[in-house]
Amino acid sequence: MKVSVIAIGDELLLGNVVDTNTPFLASLVDNEGWQLVHSCQVHDNPLDILFAVKDAMRRSDIVLTTGGLGPTKDDITKQVLCEYFGGHLVHDPEVAANVARIFAQRGLAMNPLTASQAMVPDTCKVIPNASGTAPGMWFERDGKVLVSMPGVPREMRYVFTGEVLPRLRELDKVDRMPVQHRYFLLEGISESKLNGELDALDANHVLHAVHIAYLPQPGYLKLRLDSEKVDELEKATAEFASLFSEYIFANEDTTPATALIDTLKALGLTVSSAESCTGGNIAHMITSVAGSSAVYNGSVVSYSNEMKINVLGVNPQTIARLGAVSEPVVEMMAQGVARVAQTDCAVSTSGIAGPGGATPGKPVGTVCIGIHTPAGTTTGTYHFTGNRADIIERASTKSLILLLRSLK
Amino acid sequence: MKVSVIAIGDELLLGNVVDTNTPFLASLVDNEGWQLVHSCQVHDNPLDILFAVKDAMRRSDIVLTTGGLGPTKDDITKQVLCEYFGGHLVHDPEVAANVARIFAQRGLAMNPLTASQAMVPDTCKVIPNASGTAPGMWFERDGKVLVSMPGVPREMRYVFTGEVLPRLRELDKVDRMPVQHRYFLLEGISESKLNGELDALDANHVLHAVHIAYLPQPGYLKLRLDSEKVDELEKATAEFASLFSEYIFANEDTTPATALIDTLKALGLTVSSAESCTGGNIAHMITSVAGSSAVYNGSVVSYSNEMKINVLGVNPQTIARLGAVSEPVVEMMAQGVARVAQTDCAVSTSGIAGPGGATPGKPVGTVCIGIHTPAGTTTGTYHFTGNRADIIERASTKSLILLLRSLK
Repeated sequence: MKVSVIAIGDELLLGNVVDTNTPFLASLVDNEGWQLVHSCQVHDNPLDILFAVKDAMRRSDIVLTTGGLGPTKDDITKQVLCEYFGGHLVHDPEVAANVARIFAQRGLAMNPLTASQAMVPDTCKVIPNASGTAPGMWFERDGKVLVSMPGVPREMRYVFTGEVLPRLRELDKVDRMPVQHRYFLLEGISESKLNGELDALDANHVLHAVHIAYLPQPGYLKLRLDSEKVDELEKATAEFASLFSEYIFANEDTTPATALIDTLKALGLTVSSAESCTGGNIAHMITSVAGSSAVYNGSVVSYSNEMKINVLGVNPQTIARLGAVSEPVVEMMAQGVARVAQTDCAVSTSGIAGPGGATPGKPVGTVCIGIHTPAGTTTGTYHFTGNRADIIERASTKSLILLLRSLK
Repeated sequence: MKVSVIAIGDELLLGNVVDTNTPFLASLVDNEGWQLVHSCQVHDNPLDILFAVKDAMRRSDIVLTTGGLGPTKDDITKQVLCEYFGGHLVHDPEVAANVARIFAQRGLAMNPLTASQAMVPDTCKVIPNASGTAPGMWFERDGKVLVSMPGVPREMRYVFTGEVLPRLRELDKVDRMPVQHRYFLLEGISESKLNGELDALDANHVLHAVHIAYLPQPGYLKLRLDSEKVDELEKATAEFASLFSEYIFANEDTTPATALIDTLKALGLTVSSAESCTGGNIAHMITSVAGSSAVYNGSVVSYSNEMKINVLGVNPQTIARLGAVSEPVVEMMAQGVARVAQTDCAVSTSGIAGPGGATPGKPVGTVCIGIHTPAGTTTGTYHFTGNRADIIERASTKSLILLLRSLK
């Protein structure tokens, strides 16, 4: 099935809000073997919405819209859809009851604006939204489907996965083999170099009938091999794994943090972190994974030298002699946090995230990383490019991948 | 000027990459007083790109495209633009020299794919890209402009702010007053309640000639008042500030972390954090701000009870009696980290980010927050909704806002 996504909302075109709904829907659509052919962001403006709906209905079998359903005066999606699909707005008692329930739960009083959310087009099937006040709406015309969903990401995800996706699967009764996916996460090879080497493989027909998608992530490369032919896919996957083993750090659809946590769980090891320049981002990446507390004891974000010295036991003379951004310091930080947090493993960082702080011989982007495991402590100095956020993210990701590799 | 943005790349429609280029461009376009009328994401497919370009050239004066310029075989934007604007691809010695320079810098060998980046349409002005191998391209037709930029966010930002924006300003010679903006950050009031109250203001003509943009952020609401008439804008701003003072925690275009750092700097105070359920995200939010090291000494991410007891001095009997998610525990955590990190202020969190971990009386989303200042330590228990990432983000933001308010 061909799918289009329309994200509605002035805020998306003012740049103050990043549209995360479209990538979320794109990923689920792709997983079903359907094709997202187009996505766009439009203003809360009747003509813009109408034009986008007409265009999307022409391009695709399924149109998913997000946003433009809130109670404020800018939200006019419901009126536009009512017009496009014919019919008029009617009061829906079930939606009204849901709005009243949610307001009672939050201890808020109803007002005329919120009450208006119970008005829905009589040409749609209402899709319940237990997580918020704006309901989803399912329209059909000329054998095509348009589903309107709320724009709040949490509500949209709830409505889509719980209500919309099962109904779309019902529609997709085509007799075909589902597309199978295999994933690799690689680090240390550029996209263009990998592409050149894969072209050579291609010439040998090893990747026959397999499509390769490059999915670059900050600090590493995700690669997806797709095919409906499982035998070909397995052959290509095995070939790929053997050819690029030095770069591969995971062979499933995961993240560096999740892969590390899974590996630590399998080995029965625990970890902690001591962070200077990454400023808690390693801890955030690890603790964002549900269940991480089974292997992760915590972090000391030692932004000041006093924290490094008093909490982690770093030698002040080493800092005075070599600077805080030095391999002996991250070695002591990793060993110190493993001791304080009572863990088997630890990672540590100290570097210059910029834009200020560069010193002679240590430009912005210089980061020392320490890796502590039961086998010992190793350190290295790396150089990352980009702005402050890029350097923090890449140094954090590199630390996770370094520890993961040292455990294999 | 009306502007459209086209983001090109299969990866954007597979959902593995979030398109951050469009919001970045949207924000800068809006700041100039220009209007972003439409944005879309299309596949690396000649017909899709061509259709999007034709549509955008019809809608707007300026079309900005990102992506589809890399060396791999999926990237065919250059050929499509060459066709649409007439002309053919020619070798550009300056671009070739730039590609060679960047490869030498990175210690990589040139390959035929990368060398192809030096081919550019002879109908465009080449825009140098010192930060990467793919150049920008400036095309003109029928009094309209299309600028093609690389898709790597760091390179796109470099090319747009350094090269493209100054040239676009040259084009925008319309004799008009620039639109002025005033910002407020609010917390504790819903968008619909605020909207209702603003409608009442509107009826009193206080907001005459002022446009209000709602820019919801995770955990707070950003509001922007726009007008070309400075007097009206100042009057409305003053009125708004006095009416909603209890909800306003900042009155400029900032973030909770930056507002907190600015306030601490002004007061000459330092801060640290002790994080359980937020898992380092408070530290990450603070240290993402350049210059935060002047007021921020660090964090103890005490994910295990042992870290709370051994590093922060939390009483183990209190944990045994009341649980780690309790106000007495976050009180000791805040005081403990202020002592260990030697800071004037501290924030602490302990809660249940989910999906597991709920206990009777403490559902997922329950978070205790401690705020320590020279005036003393206060604690509170809050309930946040959403998934694990939402709860972590909202609890972190709430902590920053609580400390900020306690300092005012």
